[in-house]
Amino acid sequence: MKTDPTIAIVGVTGAVGAEFIATLDRRNVPVGRLKALASARSAGQTLTFRGQTIVIEELTERSFEGVDIALFSAGSGISKKFAPIAVRSGAVVVDNSSAFRMDPNVPLVIPEINARRIRDHKGIIANPNCAAITALVPLWPIHQKNRIKRVIISTYQAASGAGAAAMDELVQSTRASLNGQVYAPKVMPHPFAFNLFSHNTAIDPDTGYNDEETKVINETHKIFEDEGIAIGVTCVRVPVLRAHCEAITFECERPISEDEVRRILATAPGVRVVDDRAKNYFPMPVDASGQDDVLVGRIRKDLSDPSGHSIAMFVAADQLLKGAALNAVQIAELLPERAMA
Amino acid sequence: MKTDPTIAIVGVTGAVGAEFIATLDRRNVPVGRLKALASARSAGQTLTFRGQTIVIEELTERSFEGVDIALFSAGSGISKKFAPIAVRSGAVVVDNSSAFRMDPNVPLVIPEINARRIRDHKGIIANPNCAAITALVPLWPIHQKNRIKRVIISTYQAASGAGAAAMDELVQSTRASLNGQVYAPKVMPHPFAFNLFSHNTAIDPDTGYNDEETKVINETHKIFEDEGIAIGVTCVRVPVLRAHCEAITFECERPISEDEVRRILATAPGVRVVDDRAKNYFPMPVDASGQDDVLVGRIRKDLSDPSGHSIAMFVAADQLLKGAALNAVQIAELLPERAMA
Repeated sequence: MKTDPTIAIVGVTGAVGAEFIATLDRRNVPVGRLKALASARSAGQTLTFRGQTIVIEELTERSFEGVDIALFSAGSGISKKFAPIAVRSGAVVVDNSSAFRMDPNVPLVIPEINARRIRDHKGIIANPNCAAITALVPLWPIHQKNRIKRVIISTYQAASGAGAAAMDELVQSTRASLNGQVYAPKVMPHPFAFNLFSHNTAIDPDTGYNDEETKVINETHKIFEDEGIAIGVTCVRVPVLRAHCEAITFECERPISEDEVRRILATAPGVRVVDDRAKNYFPMPVDASGQDDVLVGRIRKDLSDPSGHSIAMFVAADQLLKGAALNAVQIAELLPERAMA
Repeated sequence: MKTDPTIAIVGVTGAVGAEFIATLDRRNVPVGRLKALASARSAGQTLTFRGQTIVIEELTERSFEGVDIALFSAGSGISKKFAPIAVRSGAVVVDNSSAFRMDPNVPLVIPEINARRIRDHKGIIANPNCAAITALVPLWPIHQKNRIKRVIISTYQAASGAGAAAMDELVQSTRASLNGQVYAPKVMPHPFAFNLFSHNTAIDPDTGYNDEETKVINETHKIFEDEGIAIGVTCVRVPVLRAHCEAITFECERPISEDEVRRILATAPGVRVVDDRAKNYFPMPVDASGQDDVLVGRIRKDLSDPSGHSIAMFVAADQLLKGAALNAVQIAELLPERAMA
């Protein structure tokens, strides 16, 4: 990437926006100038980046003049409207929303898997769905050695996937519950305190799959460039703040052992094996939160497949980092200088 | 059952013990005399049953004289020691622990599935594992119509499965977390507030499956009387108080449609279909808690099996009721009078 790019963050006051700022800083990403963009409501507020006070500006059609890279995380509607404007202004957009992910002209990138697709961009690169990233980072190196033909995933997804307001609702409603008070859900469709519920996205009336599940399926096919992988997925929201977990069962074309999976994952980029049977220590949200790796454990033979082609495992990753801000910043770091010309 | 049996409850001060009392009362079970048994620590405390004050007695080898039915829920160790003593004293034992479940001389009963096995008892009838009950009540009527040959289950298990102390730890640790205080886990092996973790039972070092998962597998085979069902299961503890949820994917011998499953479950005993796609309303712990049915929803084609033999669904049930006390009381209600002679 350019040595001193101007980087704009769209949605800087959101949960992912805050992690964009922290991740750029922590990874020593060269930033010539940072533009902090949000809705008019937040304009005029300030934030600090590398000792400098940055005034948050209202997002407008003029916001992207002189911007080299724009990191978007303000929802699909904002991305659909403003990402093309940013591109026309000369910026490369890394978009965390679902707006462009399935667009055949937009690369959908997890750097550990398909960084090479970054160079195909026409101005926009899409950041995948967080539940997809969490599953695919560890599945990819296995898929490379022994094609995965079937996957069944059950997710345990944190509040952060629905934004800072949902995280706050989990905290406030739990506090109310502990105090014996009634709390009427405002952000989530169902009570969140000590409760869980099917993912809060719209459900296809015909298939019965919700949008989150459909994203996991479609994005896996696009990122792996393999439409033939059969995927069943159940997405569930659990009362956890910011790390997603997933129980994953997968079937390979050829027999595979748990030792082989463990060996592959031991050196896989972006993966940390946490799999201590004696201590009953496996991936947990509390350990995944605030760090970069996808934690993988409970690696074992899937006993429902006597053929020996299937493995079960349990994974955890920070939804705001590898599931969102970190993956987007990794993409930005890999942008070739010529793309910024 | 006898018209005025003497019923003993072993472990009356526990989470399940309290539900034994409430369930006997609520279901108008005829009780001539109630004996409330617990450890010496609780002896002398009182509880109220149908307006009568009952003094809790210390469990001893003499406790079962004159007892017709003994409901045990005080852990495997207590059951192993005292259930045979209760039987020698003439009582029929319904045991909620895992002590005798896989004993070939002990029926393992879910009344909606195999009530007929009750008559085979030789003094002890075992109550199945709560995660097994939750899955099997809805799977059984489907299995009757179209044999299930493969099941993959991911559980979302509540604190109550580890007892009242674990429920209290969830509450206290969550309160501490909200107040910014450190809480050192005492009951659970890992932090419980806004966290989840692999089930807190011992793990087989060779297979990598924990005891809870092994119970689900073995008990399914015994209850369904079908050793050929291939079962993969991942048991996870979530920060929920008293209802278990499970994401279940199953494969039948012949093709099966979601409509067929919905029709079968609509009239299945112990099952309530909660499956509203338009309102995004499906089984949740908050709705399952305090009621008797296994709630079933998210009934849909398993997209990972293009052959059309597989269905995915999501279930929820009260771990303390159908997962424990209710199922045991249902068994007691079905005891023939002659068994009590």
